[in-house]
Amino acid sequence: MSIVAVGSIALDTIKTPFGQKQEALGGSALYFSAAASFFAPVSLVGVVGEDFPRRDIAFLARRGVDLSGLETVPGRTFRWSGSYAGAMNEATTHATHLNVFEAFRPKLQPHHRRADVLFLGNIDPVLQRDVIAKVDRPRAIGCDTMNFWISGKRAELLRTIRRVDIMFVNDAEARMLSGETNLARAARAIRQMGPRILVIKKGEHGALLFSPSGAFAVPGMPLADVFDPTGAGDSFAGGFMGYLASQGRINDAVLRRAMVYGSAMASLIVERFSTDRLRMLRKPAIRARYRQFRKLTSFPA
Amino acid sequence: MSIVAVGSIALDTIKTPFGQKQEALGGSALYFSAAASFFAPVSLVGVVGEDFPRRDIAFLARRGVDLSGLETVPGRTFRWSGSYAGAMNEATTHATHLNVFEAFRPKLQPHHRRADVLFLGNIDPVLQRDVIAKVDRPRAIGCDTMNFWISGKRAELLRTIRRVDIMFVNDAEARMLSGETNLARAARAIRQMGPRILVIKKGEHGALLFSPSGAFAVPGMPLADVFDPTGAGDSFAGGFMGYLASQGRINDAVLRRAMVYGSAMASLIVERFSTDRLRMLRKPAIRARYRQFRKLTSFPA
Repeated sequence: MSIVAVGSIALDTIKTPFGQKQEALGGSALYFSAAASFFAPVSLVGVVGEDFPRRDIAFLARRGVDLSGLETVPGRTFRWSGSYAGAMNEATTHATHLNVFEAFRPKLQPHHRRADVLFLGNIDPVLQRDVIAKVDRPRAIGCDTMNFWISGKRAELLRTIRRVDIMFVNDAEARMLSGETNLARAARAIRQMGPRILVIKKGEHGALLFSPSGAFAVPGMPLADVFDPTGAGDSFAGGFMGYLASQGRINDAVLRRAMVYGSAMASLIVERFSTDRLRMLRKPAIRARYRQFRKLTSFPA
Repeated sequence: MSIVAVGSIALDTIKTPFGQKQEALGGSALYFSAAASFFAPVSLVGVVGEDFPRRDIAFLARRGVDLSGLETVPGRTFRWSGSYAGAMNEATTHATHLNVFEAFRPKLQPHHRRADVLFLGNIDPVLQRDVIAKVDRPRAIGCDTMNFWISGKRAELLRTIRRVDIMFVNDAEARMLSGETNLARAARAIRQMGPRILVIKKGEHGALLFSPSGAFAVPGMPLADVFDPTGAGDSFAGGFMGYLASQGRINDAVLRRAMVYGSAMASLIVERFSTDRLRMLRKPAIRARYRQFRKLTSFPA
């Protein structure tokens, strides 16, 4: 099944204890699409400015990502700069310049409207709903959001969430969205808002799945080298939705495998700076990481 | 195989968002012994004051715990009071009155010296080493510690750790002891200090095992009702060491099962106040929780 992913494309300036990178390719839609492309055909819908280094995304085209929805408009590309310290669980944002992204109105081509799977990056919930309206009965709608919309556009976000099948949030967002401190209760409350399936990402502590079949947990892979957590959450969603799309059906076993493929993608991405790992990644390395998660978590009955 | 557990017995005054309890039975050796007693014969070595409500530990005797090493001396029993808020990952200590525990010198009976498995609660590392010296070649020595000793008696602690087989720390202690922020690196550094086997407890995020066979991770069970985290870490260690003692040998499969039994005990304990769950717990409930961990974490190859 094919995926349409809508979200941000950015140039990130990142500083971590291990180094820094200026204006590296980033953004939720970019990480998502690159990760998902290892599993299923992906179309990216986003916007960049005239200053965008188009040649830098040649690797996406080589990975088969359909870039016909990547619009170039007059102005500068979205820029974000941030840094990570200590255990690197959270970024400190230094600057956010939305630039052309501020006026982003997702434009879907006719072939995008026939997508089987839709992924909505953490853009304005009103735009997320516009996109949902434009796609002909997708088989599954995945949706991300962020603290900015949870507090700033809550009513609109709730209207969007009602139409979503699979919701992705991190633990802080789950607590903020539900008003519950306890994650099991937060999950129950969010699933009552609409999504049958909820994924709570916990950074180095792994991720939780709540579905009609119950809860499933994947711990974080204890990595000795974590260089840059940027894009880990989007790569998780890309691996998850990509694997789902590759299977053509959603059941408990498929969802559990999707969680592990999501975890595998996130854990691979953070071992290099920005998109460096995604550029050189091959399928066997992903399968090997999947097996590492089996070894990390398996125990006898 | 039989276990000797040395550590604190306390009267805890606890406040959580769900209620409070005055002078409830607590202390590391008490939680450990109660949890371990579901798996193997346990002897408790500790000290209490004349004010200690002996009848409150009748449940330990009923569970077969050997209390011949529980000394009563003139004075008041160790008292701790603390509270938990929010996600309840960490206690805020309001008062610590060591009382008779301050002068605690573990006294081992002749039959204690033949213990197969020794567990050292987080007491002064000099006392921990004294106990090690008194036991005739135990098959396995497990050891807990705390920030107070890591910063206050580091050299003594390192001398003790060198003689330990299985070390238990939480994530903050692992970072403090090793000087490494990254947990995989922290684990490597701590294992180089002596212990072949290291368990890092992460509260609601589960636990990590590092052994010669590699890493193993158990996520936390997402519980809707967490009433009181007091004693969770000690109950984890009790379930872990108890299961190990019940098996008579240490290999990768046994260690993995021990991690899950430890997780099961901790997750059961926190669903009630202080030792309330331990008092009414039966083996089938532990086995059921073990199966719940299988369901929570299993995924197809």
